[in-house]
Amino acid sequence: MVEFVDARGDDPKEVVSRLRRPGGFLSEPVRKVARDIVSDVRDGGDEALLAHTERLDGVRPDPIRVPLEEIQAAKASLSPEVKESFGVAIENVRFFHKRELDRPFETSRAGATVGQRIRPIRRAGIYVPGGHGAYPSTVVMAAVPAQVAGVPEIAVCAPPGRDGSVSRHVLAVAGLLGLDEVYRVGGAQAIGAMAYGTESIPPVLKIVGPGNDYVTAAKLEVFGHVGVDAPLGPSEVVVIAEAGAFPERVARDLMAQAEHLSGASAILLTPSEELMRSVEPLLTGEPAELITLVRVRDSAHAVELTNLYAPEHAHIISEDPEAILQDLDAVGMVAVGDFTPVALGDYGAGPSHSLPTNGAASWASALGTHDFTARTNYIHYGPEALADLGPHVMRLARLEGFPNHAESVGVRLPKGG
Amino acid sequence: MVEFVDARGDDPKEVVSRLRRPGGFLSEPVRKVARDIVSDVRDGGDEALLAHTERLDGVRPDPIRVPLEEIQAAKASLSPEVKESFGVAIENVRFFHKRELDRPFETSRAGATVGQRIRPIRRAGIYVPGGHGAYPSTVVMAAVPAQVAGVPEIAVCAPPGRDGSVSRHVLAVAGLLGLDEVYRVGGAQAIGAMAYGTESIPPVLKIVGPGNDYVTAAKLEVFGHVGVDAPLGPSEVVVIAEAGAFPERVARDLMAQAEHLSGASAILLTPSEELMRSVEPLLTGEPAELITLVRVRDSAHAVELTNLYAPEHAHIISEDPEAILQDLDAVGMVAVGDFTPVALGDYGAGPSHSLPTNGAASWASALGTHDFTARTNYIHYGPEALADLGPHVMRLARLEGFPNHAESVGVRLPKGG
Repeated sequence: MVEFVDARGDDPKEVVSRLRRPGGFLSEPVRKVARDIVSDVRDGGDEALLAHTERLDGVRPDPIRVPLEEIQAAKASLSPEVKESFGVAIENVRFFHKRELDRPFETSRAGATVGQRIRPIRRAGIYVPGGHGAYPSTVVMAAVPAQVAGVPEIAVCAPPGRDGSVSRHVLAVAGLLGLDEVYRVGGAQAIGAMAYGTESIPPVLKIVGPGNDYVTAAKLEVFGHVGVDAPLGPSEVVVIAEAGAFPERVARDLMAQAEHLSGASAILLTPSEELMRSVEPLLTGEPAELITLVRVRDSAHAVELTNLYAPEHAHIISEDPEAILQDLDAVGMVAVGDFTPVALGDYGAGPSHSLPTNGAASWASALGTHDFTARTNYIHYGPEALADLGPHVMRLARLEGFPNHAESVGVRLPKGG
Repeated sequence: MVEFVDARGDDPKEVVSRLRRPGGFLSEPVRKVARDIVSDVRDGGDEALLAHTERLDGVRPDPIRVPLEEIQAAKASLSPEVKESFGVAIENVRFFHKRELDRPFETSRAGATVGQRIRPIRRAGIYVPGGHGAYPSTVVMAAVPAQVAGVPEIAVCAPPGRDGSVSRHVLAVAGLLGLDEVYRVGGAQAIGAMAYGTESIPPVLKIVGPGNDYVTAAKLEVFGHVGVDAPLGPSEVVVIAEAGAFPERVARDLMAQAEHLSGASAILLTPSEELMRSVEPLLTGEPAELITLVRVRDSAHAVELTNLYAPEHAHIISEDPEAILQDLDAVGMVAVGDFTPVALGDYGAGPSHSLPTNGAASWASALGTHDFTARTNYIHYGPEALADLGPHVMRLARLEGFPNHAESVGVRLPKGG
């Protein structure tokens, strides 16, 4: 059943607290399961990894790493049309992320140089979910930013099917991108294996990619030992639509997000009672259970609710969508205007489709090259610059009770200086 | 006792595994304590926060929030000299971070616009450690990047002394920076309070700042619900010094890092037996226990070990320090050249002194404006651009089994298109 909310007279925070948002990966039972699996794999290596894979996926993949010939065969088996479409997606995603790449800087004044290097992480792990389907697009959306960032080693984990093999399309895209390190394991056990390493899987320094609640919880468990991206949980969209929107299009936008199922959430914010009434009959089947239609006062009210909810995606269907874009401040990706369905972003407009969910858009970014680089700051002082700053540093170090800090400056200043 | 290592003939990975690195915040007992405190505060609010504060700090601060007059009085009590030195530090840190700030972009081709906004996080929390001393410099090093990023609400937590008050210098720097929201609570309980909110402390969206093992472990626990920065644990330095280095200076550099105690680690990498022998007698007292002198083959060997160890700080004392800087790829901050003691960075050369520790420099960045911003991507397609990309998206969406994704494009294409 589609849910209706009339938000016009209510406190915005209270409205947002009523909107569907599962966030199961933060629940203590899920965290506990993920923690136990991760520590089993940390302590038990391949044997624990295979035991959990057998228990959860019904198969013991052998070998764990996909043979290169299998990747090449999958790539060769692609139809020319599908290969072309993946090629277009890869080119767009590469174009966007080349533009996104952070740039180093260096600046000098009065004999003091300060700067920042941007360097690729040496080895990254990408999780590609399986389960209900296969997501070759996720390989594009995580591996291309990693490659643009210059990551020299990229490992991919994807859950095996009942026959022990990884989706042919996932392997084919790996082949198109020149990735040759793919492991047929999934779930929290794959996260544990990438974080701590096993006999078959050398450990990575950072793990990215979307997954189910257990995968996401496992990433939270290993964070600190390795890096991880933002929580990429069940998919969400807020569609902000004015009275002039076409109901059939809005209905498809909502159904598209909701057909992810697994706790997805699709919300329409509109001031138009008529639009709501026209859209509602077009929402059918299981996805309709995950859709909420919210009556708002006006566009400003819609923006206020969206910023509080901080959705993974927003789609703006308005006479002046750019104005609304400028007011949104907590969304993973915004699709602007009626001719930009969110699906374009999902498959290849340019930005990664790996986006913060469950409100994390209020503090986290879309996956990008910045997830595959780290910043090293540096300072280079000459003797005069040291003489200028040194006495201040000595004073503050002594104030905090660190005489050796002060003296590490003092021994470098001219005597009597 | 200073420790000696001869690394010349050994496997680099094996050498690095022998170097001191506590990383206690990742241990399961510490994680468990932090988890329990955080969940107590989440469930119990102010009462739980005060109970843990009384148990650990011996006092129940009342009120929890520092009155504004106290901040103003602390600021007014600063001597002109100390005020000037903090002013110099603040100006340098602001200068660096203005330069660092990520920039938005937008680019169009063939009717398709893609772009990225960089937006400040709405509300951030800064942890300022106490314990052995007071660290007003940490307020500068976290709050200035937050302010440059444009964060409108900044909350500060600092542990109370036995008398229930926060260090006067911490309050004074808060006053200098115009911060008026300071809470006298510390430890894992302060992290829990900022993450989940209590009656006295409105929740924040992201928590940053260094702390002891329990504070760091608590940040890992709340990650996912809120954002956190990299693990900022016990301090570390690697000093890479050639034969020409002055022993007295090198000794001070090592002692400066080691005087942080609490699991700090200071390592000298040098090819010079003579330098090691000259430095060793200058290392005294408790800090000397935390210092390791490592004999390496040459500078390239030193770089290899440093990159594997991924220290918080590196200091390069060499005839050609710039060349070594270019080869380092996993360090939080590098101090380049003999006239640049690390202490300059600690107190006010420009970059933040909040840096990834325990090897996290291999995947994480120095604290900076990027910790206080998030990226929102957007796409804006016109009808022609949709007609170009749309069929590819429809094909890939159907391949993955998402007919509504495909139709959200299809309903926007010309009939028969």
